[in-house]
Amino acid sequence: MGNLSVGSKRIITLLTDFGDQDYFVGAMKGVILSINPEANVVDLTHDISPQDIETAAFNLFCCYQSFPSGTIHVAVVDPGVGSDRKPIAIECAQQFLVGPDNGLFSWICDREKDWQAVQLTNSKFFHQPVSRTFHGRDIFAPIAAELSKGLAINELGEPVGDIVRLDSLEPKRVDDRTIEGRVIHIDRFGNCITNFRPADLSAHGDASWKLTIGGQEISSFLEFFAEGEEGDIFCIVGSAGFLEIAARNRSAAQILNLRRGQSLHLVSAPLSRIRARLD
Amino acid sequence: MGNLSVGSKRIITLLTDFGDQDYFVGAMKGVILSINPEANVVDLTHDISPQDIETAAFNLFCCYQSFPSGTIHVAVVDPGVGSDRKPIAIECAQQFLVGPDNGLFSWICDREKDWQAVQLTNSKFFHQPVSRTFHGRDIFAPIAAELSKGLAINELGEPVGDIVRLDSLEPKRVDDRTIEGRVIHIDRFGNCITNFRPADLSAHGDASWKLTIGGQEISSFLEFFAEGEEGDIFCIVGSAGFLEIAARNRSAAQILNLRRGQSLHLVSAPLSRIRARLD
Amino acid sequence: MGNLSVGSKRIITLLTDFGDQDYFVGAMKGVILSINPEANVVDLTHDISPQDIETAAFNLFCCYQSFPSGTIHVAVVDPGVGSDRKPIAIECAQQFLVGPDNGLFSWICDREKDWQAVQLTNSKFFHQPVSRTFHGRDIFAPIAAELSKGLAINELGEPVGDIVRLDSLEPKRVDDRTIEGRVIHIDRFGNCITNFRPADLSAHGDASWKLTIGGQEISSFLEFFAEGEEGDIFCIVGSAGFLEIAARNRSAAQILNLRRGQSLHLVSAPLSRIRARLD
Repeated sequence: MGNLSVGSKRIITLLTDFGDQDYFVGAMKGVILSINPEANVVDLTHDISPQDIETAAFNLFCCYQSFPSGTIHVAVVDPGVGSDRKPIAIECAQQFLVGPDNGLFSWICDREKDWQAVQLTNSKFFHQPVSRTFHGRDIFAPIAAELSKGLAINELGEPVGDIVRLDSLEPKRVDDRTIEGRVIHIDRFGNCITNFRPADLSAHGDASWKLTIGGQEISSFLEFFAEGEEGDIFCIVGSAGFLEIAARNRSAAQILNLRRGQSLHLVSAPLSRIRARLD
Repeated sequence: MGNLSVGSKRIITLLTDFGDQDYFVGAMKGVILSINPEANVVDLTHDISPQDIETAAFNLFCCYQSFPSGTIHVAVVDPGVGSDRKPIAIECAQQFLVGPDNGLFSWICDREKDWQAVQLTNSKFFHQPVSRTFHGRDIFAPIAAELSKGLAINELGEPVGDIVRLDSLEPKRVDDRTIEGRVIHIDRFGNCITNFRPADLSAHGDASWKLTIGGQEISSFLEFFAEGEEGDIFCIVGSAGFLEIAARNRSAAQILNLRRGQSLHLVSAPLSRIRARLD
Repeated sequence: MGNLSVGSKRIITLLTDFGDQDYFVGAMKGVILSINPEANVVDLTHDISPQDIETAAFNLFCCYQSFPSGTIHVAVVDPGVGSDRKPIAIECAQQFLVGPDNGLFSWICDREKDWQAVQLTNSKFFHQPVSRTFHGRDIFAPIAAELSKGLAINELGEPVGDIVRLDSLEPKRVDDRTIEGRVIHIDRFGNCITNFRPADLSAHGDASWKLTIGGQEISSFLEFFAEGEEGDIFCIVGSAGFLEIAARNRSAAQILNLRRGQSLHLVSAPLSRIRARLD
């Protein structure tokens, strides 16, 4: 899988649903720094809603590419902790992913051509005794620390053929004029990130598009937030590369009463008809 | 107190009730890094409820052992700031604890055999001028930074004989069949951590146990969360080593309407009687 | 502007309104560490309310002086992202400030005598492609990383003559006996920070003062929080150097129903009259 720079200063990112009112994150940091005091531990977020695997998967999917080669991403949203769900490590995109096999890394592996995963079975690298309720501290943190010191993932356990997958981020074609997508994330500002990409707009040559969701239509496509008028609802190409439904300085999710997972359609129309509506 | 590795790269953890909407945490980090740019400043949490000394004490108690020798833990939940409550530093378990003497370090000292504390009186190590309202920035942060550079705690001030103590974490024996405990923490997931330990269950040989709280009984003891049925309430040995009252993917605290500090009882019963109830 | 120590280990602080539920902060950290793996990235806070430029400006104003020379502060509260608002970098107080030109750095420049600002136009230092919605990741993070490696700000773009200013923090004199100020911040504990300073109290020799706000009067000036009686409202010199309206272990903002921006007056009175009121 290419040559990764090996070194004890590697970055270890943490993404969890542990929140900020408990010792969980602190314990993971302590375990990592006890094994590799040189590791650079970086908080992504710990405010994923409890057990919300999809939001965790989306956030990691949107930022792993910003990190350098050799970075180790630890993601712990783990309602199945202690059960027979597998603890895994994945090497892909010259980075490492460590956490439970429950879909957290599904979209990254969908996008990357080349990856390999192992089940974490080599207990000599675990923090002993291993609790049945906190693998973040007892399995994932020490494994990440060992990887940061240069350990190869094939030392961690046996290869696994596939990983648990979430629903694909690919929109579905309904007919010549329509593709169906969904709201995959609602951000802090109330912007609704869809799984449509700019390429979905341009695929049909000179046709214009509108977005329909819950009986409402959006046909205004802008380039940046402040371009909108106060109160307008519009589409924008967001920073994660997806179309977003947005409102200037307001929450589009609240205005339109949208929820994550909600279905929406991108419908093409002849340019003349769109123009008529704008008159 | 043993030989601590001395070095400017030591870890300094921060645990406060300062929240995330103010400059308080930033100011502490700046003061530390101004004195020791090599210090590794690690956030434990800043979301302790305002003035909630017990929760802060519990969180530090549950994770200090995960950190390496030489780590300096700064805890600032300090409603008495500026009054005659003592600022202190403690050396124990080859680590350092820095903060106000109001019980924050009480449970760690209860557990550790050997510790020594000093009152922070040597003002030459303070950040001048010392405010009357923010000792986190003006006393505790600079003292931690000096410790991270290898200063010995006896340079910081005079020894103190004892520290302020919180109610002990030891359960109380009521009679042959009953011990009384309390809910010492409710975590983000709604799990209710009690001050009972697994040893309290096994102390009576072959007897079985039930937990009673506010007129309710819990007699199901599971090994991990996902083992429970949706909606069940059960006990589990949590990652801090205490019995927890839990529900699968739900908040046991909400379902049972439990609060921290609430009293509960562990009652032994002959095995035959428990078996009868399970039929 | 003096000699700054140059070195790849420089501190980069982050202050945003990105919250903790999205990938935004993680992406900024990744971009910085990809450019300068030695940078020490320090979170100030990401919990500024969306688009609340004043609170961000206040928090940075209150803690930048705690950081060492050479520190780079990145502040991103940026409702105008993608529009013609300028991205800027400022060198002042031997530190650097990076972010949108919308007032975030206004109060720091008001206080510091000497500063120079440039508009960030040299796109060779940007993260490509530059999105229209996330300059935190694509402009401000990489610029901060380049500064941390020793790049001079005049390499980043053309000087700008002035920056966008917020309302000054100076109180206004109304008449001989009265100065008018406002609540500039309400902290996590409910303390209301005003823009009055201790010097405003002492400027009139032996006169005593009272604070009036929304028909209410406060004439009790204490030195620290625990000095107050439970339920009392009093004034205190806070850790940022301003007068604060506080209550012991309670939220003064809630008790008095105060909001940020609310106008208040500091009124002098002959000592005899104040004494009479106290009898």
